[in-house]
Amino acid sequence: MAFNDKCAVAGVWNHPAASFLTYLALYALQHRGQEGAGIVSLHEGKHLSCKDQGLVGQIFTKEKLAQLKGSSAIGHTRYSTTGLDELKNIQPFTKELNLGPLSVAHNGNIVNYSLLKEKFLKESRVFTEGDSDTECLFPLMADCEEKELGQRLLKACSQLEGAYSFVILTKDSFIAVRDPMGFRPLVLGKKEEAYVVASETCAFDLIGAKYIREISAGEILIINKQGMKSLFLPKAQKKARCIFEYVYFSRPDSFVFSQNVYERRKKMGEYLAKEHPISADMVIPVPDSGIPAAIAYAQHTGLPYEMGIVRNHYIGRTFIQPSPLIRNFKVKIKLNPQTIVKGKRVVAIDDSIVRGTTSKALVEILRSAGAKEVHLRVSSPPIKGPCYYGVDTPQKKQLISGEGHDVEKVRQFIGADSLAYLSYESLLKAGGSREFCSACFDEKYPTAVYNSL
Amino acid sequence: MAFNDKCAVAGVWNHPAASFLTYLALYALQHRGQEGAGIVSLHEGKHLSCKDQGLVGQIFTKEKLAQLKGSSAIGHTRYSTTGLDELKNIQPFTKELNLGPLSVAHNGNIVNYSLLKEKFLKESRVFTEGDSDTECLFPLMADCEEKELGQRLLKACSQLEGAYSFVILTKDSFIAVRDPMGFRPLVLGKKEEAYVVASETCAFDLIGAKYIREISAGEILIINKQGMKSLFLPKAQKKARCIFEYVYFSRPDSFVFSQNVYERRKKMGEYLAKEHPISADMVIPVPDSGIPAAIAYAQHTGLPYEMGIVRNHYIGRTFIQPSPLIRNFKVKIKLNPQTIVKGKRVVAIDDSIVRGTTSKALVEILRSAGAKEVHLRVSSPPIKGPCYYGVDTPQKKQLISGEGHDVEKVRQFIGADSLAYLSYESLLKAGGSREFCSACFDEKYPTAVYNSL
Amino acid sequence: MAFNDKCAVAGVWNHPAASFLTYLALYALQHRGQEGAGIVSLHEGKHLSCKDQGLVGQIFTKEKLAQLKGSSAIGHTRYSTTGLDELKNIQPFTKELNLGPLSVAHNGNIVNYSLLKEKFLKESRVFTEGDSDTECLFPLMADCEEKELGQRLLKACSQLEGAYSFVILTKDSFIAVRDPMGFRPLVLGKKEEAYVVASETCAFDLIGAKYIREISAGEILIINKQGMKSLFLPKAQKKARCIFEYVYFSRPDSFVFSQNVYERRKKMGEYLAKEHPISADMVIPVPDSGIPAAIAYAQHTGLPYEMGIVRNHYIGRTFIQPSPLIRNFKVKIKLNPQTIVKGKRVVAIDDSIVRGTTSKALVEILRSAGAKEVHLRVSSPPIKGPCYYGVDTPQKKQLISGEGHDVEKVRQFIGADSLAYLSYESLLKAGGSREFCSACFDEKYPTAVYNSL
Amino acid sequence: MAFNDKCAVAGVWNHPAASFLTYLALYALQHRGQEGAGIVSLHEGKHLSCKDQGLVGQIFTKEKLAQLKGSSAIGHTRYSTTGLDELKNIQPFTKELNLGPLSVAHNGNIVNYSLLKEKFLKESRVFTEGDSDTECLFPLMADCEEKELGQRLLKACSQLEGAYSFVILTKDSFIAVRDPMGFRPLVLGKKEEAYVVASETCAFDLIGAKYIREISAGEILIINKQGMKSLFLPKAQKKARCIFEYVYFSRPDSFVFSQNVYERRKKMGEYLAKEHPISADMVIPVPDSGIPAAIAYAQHTGLPYEMGIVRNHYIGRTFIQPSPLIRNFKVKIKLNPQTIVKGKRVVAIDDSIVRGTTSKALVEILRSAGAKEVHLRVSSPPIKGPCYYGVDTPQKKQLISGEGHDVEKVRQFIGADSLAYLSYESLLKAGGSREFCSACFDEKYPTAVYNSL
Repeated sequence: MAFNDKCAVAGVWNHPAASFLTYLALYALQHRGQEGAGIVSLHEGKHLSCKDQGLVGQIFTKEKLAQLKGSSAIGHTRYSTTGLDELKNIQPFTKELNLGPLSVAHNGNIVNYSLLKEKFLKESRVFTEGDSDTECLFPLMADCEEKELGQRLLKACSQLEGAYSFVILTKDSFIAVRDPMGFRPLVLGKKEEAYVVASETCAFDLIGAKYIREISAGEILIINKQGMKSLFLPKAQKKARCIFEYVYFSRPDSFVFSQNVYERRKKMGEYLAKEHPISADMVIPVPDSGIPAAIAYAQHTGLPYEMGIVRNHYIGRTFIQPSPLIRNFKVKIKLNPQTIVKGKRVVAIDDSIVRGTTSKALVEILRSAGAKEVHLRVSSPPIKGPCYYGVDTPQKKQLISGEGHDVEKVRQFIGADSLAYLSYESLLKAGGSREFCSACFDEKYPTAVYNSL
Repeated sequence: MAFNDKCAVAGVWNHPAASFLTYLALYALQHRGQEGAGIVSLHEGKHLSCKDQGLVGQIFTKEKLAQLKGSSAIGHTRYSTTGLDELKNIQPFTKELNLGPLSVAHNGNIVNYSLLKEKFLKESRVFTEGDSDTECLFPLMADCEEKELGQRLLKACSQLEGAYSFVILTKDSFIAVRDPMGFRPLVLGKKEEAYVVASETCAFDLIGAKYIREISAGEILIINKQGMKSLFLPKAQKKARCIFEYVYFSRPDSFVFSQNVYERRKKMGEYLAKEHPISADMVIPVPDSGIPAAIAYAQHTGLPYEMGIVRNHYIGRTFIQPSPLIRNFKVKIKLNPQTIVKGKRVVAIDDSIVRGTTSKALVEILRSAGAKEVHLRVSSPPIKGPCYYGVDTPQKKQLISGEGHDVEKVRQFIGADSLAYLSYESLLKAGGSREFCSACFDEKYPTAVYNSL
Repeated sequence: MAFNDKCAVAGVWNHPAASFLTYLALYALQHRGQEGAGIVSLHEGKHLSCKDQGLVGQIFTKEKLAQLKGSSAIGHTRYSTTGLDELKNIQPFTKELNLGPLSVAHNGNIVNYSLLKEKFLKESRVFTEGDSDTECLFPLMADCEEKELGQRLLKACSQLEGAYSFVILTKDSFIAVRDPMGFRPLVLGKKEEAYVVASETCAFDLIGAKYIREISAGEILIINKQGMKSLFLPKAQKKARCIFEYVYFSRPDSFVFSQNVYERRKKMGEYLAKEHPISADMVIPVPDSGIPAAIAYAQHTGLPYEMGIVRNHYIGRTFIQPSPLIRNFKVKIKLNPQTIVKGKRVVAIDDSIVRGTTSKALVEILRSAGAKEVHLRVSSPPIKGPCYYGVDTPQKKQLISGEGHDVEKVRQFIGADSLAYLSYESLLKAGGSREFCSACFDEKYPTAVYNSL
Repeated sequence: MAFNDKCAVAGVWNHPAASFLTYLALYALQHRGQEGAGIVSLHEGKHLSCKDQGLVGQIFTKEKLAQLKGSSAIGHTRYSTTGLDELKNIQPFTKELNLGPLSVAHNGNIVNYSLLKEKFLKESRVFTEGDSDTECLFPLMADCEEKELGQRLLKACSQLEGAYSFVILTKDSFIAVRDPMGFRPLVLGKKEEAYVVASETCAFDLIGAKYIREISAGEILIINKQGMKSLFLPKAQKKARCIFEYVYFSRPDSFVFSQNVYERRKKMGEYLAKEHPISADMVIPVPDSGIPAAIAYAQHTGLPYEMGIVRNHYIGRTFIQPSPLIRNFKVKIKLNPQTIVKGKRVVAIDDSIVRGTTSKALVEILRSAGAKEVHLRVSSPPIKGPCYYGVDTPQKKQLISGEGHDVEKVRQFIGADSLAYLSYESLLKAGGSREFCSACFDEKYPTAVYNSL
């Protein structure tokens, strides 16, 4: 019930089935972007590309994967709005530079993109029409003609501000880059002689790769026939790991920022139980994102855990919506309450509240199923501001806690008997007390934001 | 991890958006059949039909539903194998008889089908090429020319043996029929002035219909402009409600055979806990079907409940399978174990074991994730025989418990540290101690089976 | 500029690539029906079927043809209106009878269909919902249980009235049937050890088969492992070969009713020149159907032949029509006049006039391209009545010559400077002075028509 | 039977249905490119784009055209080979520059493309990966930041060598450009208050626009709200209009280079008759491209014109090819000889011979249909070299006359009884004795060719 991440990246170096493994990795990362995907493979110095709208499993056929020859490949899945010409926005992007072909898959958002683009346009550069922040990497990489690849990457990336986990292919090298603040995750694995890079470790589990380590914040890892080497961008004053990866984005079975996500979420549920216990008959998760916190909340309150809401997983993107015919349709098509809530006092656990409309519908549905009391517990604090680092968020004024509504006002809107959020301090503690970006909760943006979005 | 039901039926009488509500009902019933679906509406005495392979959400567009005019409609979703000409097998079937058009959607299997067909072929009748048991309803209905619709239905159905929950449209009437033994569920609901019939009540929840009651075993319910009436087929000696609806088929939020499925499954978990407790560190469900029993098993053993396996719900039907590249791929593409199992003694709860191969892969995966011990607990008894009443089952010899393997042999094959099944007695008790068909567990088939399948 | 035939049939016996050759034959016969096609092959006593809407080249892929195994196959292309559930109307139809599977592809129309269906419905038979006249063959074939296949075919077909060229597959035999009046063409060819049957010989040319002979009117040709034999239906009083096959339906390169179509059309042009010469600057065909007659008209009048109108062959079925924006759009999207007509007196040759609206638009377009005079010459007589023998015709009142308009009235409507039709006598002479059905021109229907259509 | 042009361009300024009219114009120009098409419209300063592989009628739906809002639009159809990522090659191309969005549709080929690209890459520019010559217009247009649009276009285009007919959209202007040598056609028309630009006038005929004039060689026509003005590139020493537009590319009903194509082709046939008469029984065109010359050849030899070969127009792009099964399949699927050739001496008229394989197959087919003699007459001279100006040609060594084979050797290969080509002088005379590029016939390339292709 939260916002959507904008994408996932993956890549494989030195495996005869490189594009196939990249495809599987994207399969495992599908939760980070369901509207488009692409794979670029490196074959005899050329980049072969296949990209389309849709789910990973719909886009890539056996025939297409067979055409994506080569022992190295990178891939991307994307969350986006549809339109007339959305294909141009699907990554990896491939361009030709003086150093040969360059393909890039990007998770994150470069906040000084507009400034860079403005400067480049003034210098008579040509851009793809549209608004991709990723594209400004190309003129930066094209610029310093003489220098060696690593130096070029260092110089180019040092001009970028914001969030970027890149997987890059050149005519002969495979590169993984993570911005100095380390906003978005990026991990390195190994399968036999091959290296694998992905947004989350769940991709490694599927393809049978072994997790080695995180790509460090500020690291530029270059792999080619000469071997593997790491360069480092100037160190940031502090890290800014996205705390929302723990709250919602990542798959619970992944290791993200070197910690298991499921355990982090259980911690949130544990602290939520300690901060906001309540006398009730059962704890129910809002599936699927609320499950880990609900399990812990139940364990730590001693209340019985129940599957009080059933989720229909067959919902595609295009169900036909009968606005006036069925009340709360958008929630009902996905979630159905169980009879077990009838006459009971239930504590529903959700991971976050964005606009509040879904929570309101959910409370209504639970009441109409006979719940005597509905207490909503949220395993993160109120969301106060949009994200500028690669997440699809509504504007501040559309956030129910964005314009000063206190918790009581939100409760009234939602119609719950009680409402409580995890405290900011506990969230950080649950996250492992590390350096995080939590700007959506506290509006302390770790970079300039250039009035952008 | 069990067999697949062969279908779901639904229908709406007297609603201006009849085909649209039928579409939503099929959406909610998608778990009962994912390979094809169809809707037939009644418009000015004619039957309008739209059927295709695929998921409900893929088949029906706004435009197609708009063409399915009329205030009455019936629908069907189907589980089947694909082939060259599978469209002919997608229901509802529509034929023309002396009483006008007749459309039928059927859940179940008519066991004396071959005998009936043989007799009819000898009488120079014409059948659709293929093997649909449903089709023999048409010559039966065509036969007794003079008689009134209700009498005709009574006479026709009384010649059928086996399992049939029908939803039927004629030129002016809407009919729901359930066989005298009541193998498959069928429920009646109301939405404003409209009557609604569906395989499970979860369809009513989505469209906002009120559950009235089950269609009784042996009932023929006829609704038309003259009103509503029920006729009854000769009473069966005993009922034969499919116990597997409780074990696996039905959605947990449905009422089936007048009882809530989730509560039945929790009972199975409870009795499993009592019969086969074990000293362990955590209880984990095999998602999604093992969840209710696992919750109850944890509650009654006091062991912590954990989400030890994560399910990827983005798996479509057509992922490309890399047989040799990745071990246990078929399970891994769907299920990934959590780190939380590392070094732990886990009790995994599954609803049933069919061939044993999935369980074997699962145990292997859990062990490779570091589980110290893996104890498998199954919330139903060993499956000993195939089903002849509308379920897609493998042959007896493919069932791991079908040819006399005792539990220890199965345990060895699967590789678990221990394995235990719910006893037959407890299953029945969990089901509410009513009259069930449990032939897949005890091979006591409640009808002749005619060496069929 | 005429009506559309309703279909083509083809079939191959005893060739390892039977379904592939049938596919090519349908390709060559595509002009007889562009809205749907199907192939059924005989493999180990079973009938394998693949049918769909669209053009032959779109429906059948390499994969699908590979699945249509067996050394015998039959096929059909269809002209039809689209609808919700049109798939059920696409032939070959396959049913199961006491003699095993029976598949039928039919060109023509059985005029006593309604009577037969009514009788069968009264006898409690079941029909596919819809209006296919072809279907009544099945109960007729099912009826006489004991008798041998040939006798059965004789008895069944002798009850049919109207037009039927059938290609039929049973569990072991390949059958070609032509009605006693011989309305529609059907020819027999040979390719190596294989026998081939098709509506027109152009299908043989493509697949490299040798034309042997026509299937005779009233012949039932049965081929199976025992050999080949012919039975004969009772002789009709006279033949009723469709004269419109020569006027428009057949491809000019085909042999139809044992004569070359192109030569027949040239004869029509020759007689038209003799009956209706005119002083003009050039002769132009309305492409493509008017070309042969125009060539002959030019040869026999001595006027220069010119390609005065260019046809755009890239028009698919689904161009978007901008009714108000562009005058005469429906004709302009296909036909564009040449500058060569500017200031000239042109004789435009068309094969027939149905509603008159296309001719009217054409005259208007030629005038706006600067033609000084437009004289329309039609290589067949005025169409006075609809066809009941397998042709898609408008109702009588929609035919411009259907309700008594004389030639001058038609000329006024169309706006030509002069208009003349080939005389009925010359048409017959051009056709070879044989026994024809020319009911659309003289309303002398060779069978009862049962107020049908 | 000749090479394929690479594309067509079209555009509309100031019409409420701009994108719809552009769509129809592309429909009429489909013969110039059948593998992809695109339209870009100008709406509130933004460029809306829709492009895809396929035929114009398949790509654009009512819905998509409705989304292409705005009163100005440009379009392109494309001939290309298919591949993994061919979408990136489909025009119009849209980029963002300092002057805003810039979209370009291009017919022709810029021969100094590689040099320009090399220079730009050295200057650290970024290109789309691939080999589009069109793309170098963008950095050229981006370059001279200060100057006014017209000056910028002048400066940019003056650096291009080769063939270019551009239709261009900026944020507020509509531009048509034709290179100083005038290789490819480009015409200006008017429909009510709207201006229309297209490759050929047949596009105007369909949409009801009036032909005004050619865009002059070297003209840059700019239309915007301030009005219409023309600038001129430095005059070329001589014009180089593509003579092959008259031989094959253009539709016969078009005006190209201010002359009617059909009349030019008839002149070719006339001169061919005078240069190479022969005693024979009939003249037959190789359809469709040989028809105009065949008509004239017949008129001037007095031999009867006959439709000796029938063309099947239902051939899509994807028929399944049964190499070994059917001899000369590639020709037979399209062309079928008529019986009328049996025992006759035929003169077959074709527009050109490229590799010779099609002609060889054709002669074989005619002979097997019984032709006593086959005399091939070609309405253009032997093709000696490839085209570098926007035509899809095979390499020199694949041209049957490319490596010094004299006519007799070609005749032997083809198997005709006699073979004769139109003389080079007559070709030019038939073309109107103007300045042409005829490099494919005489290898006198009017520009440097940079060893390219």
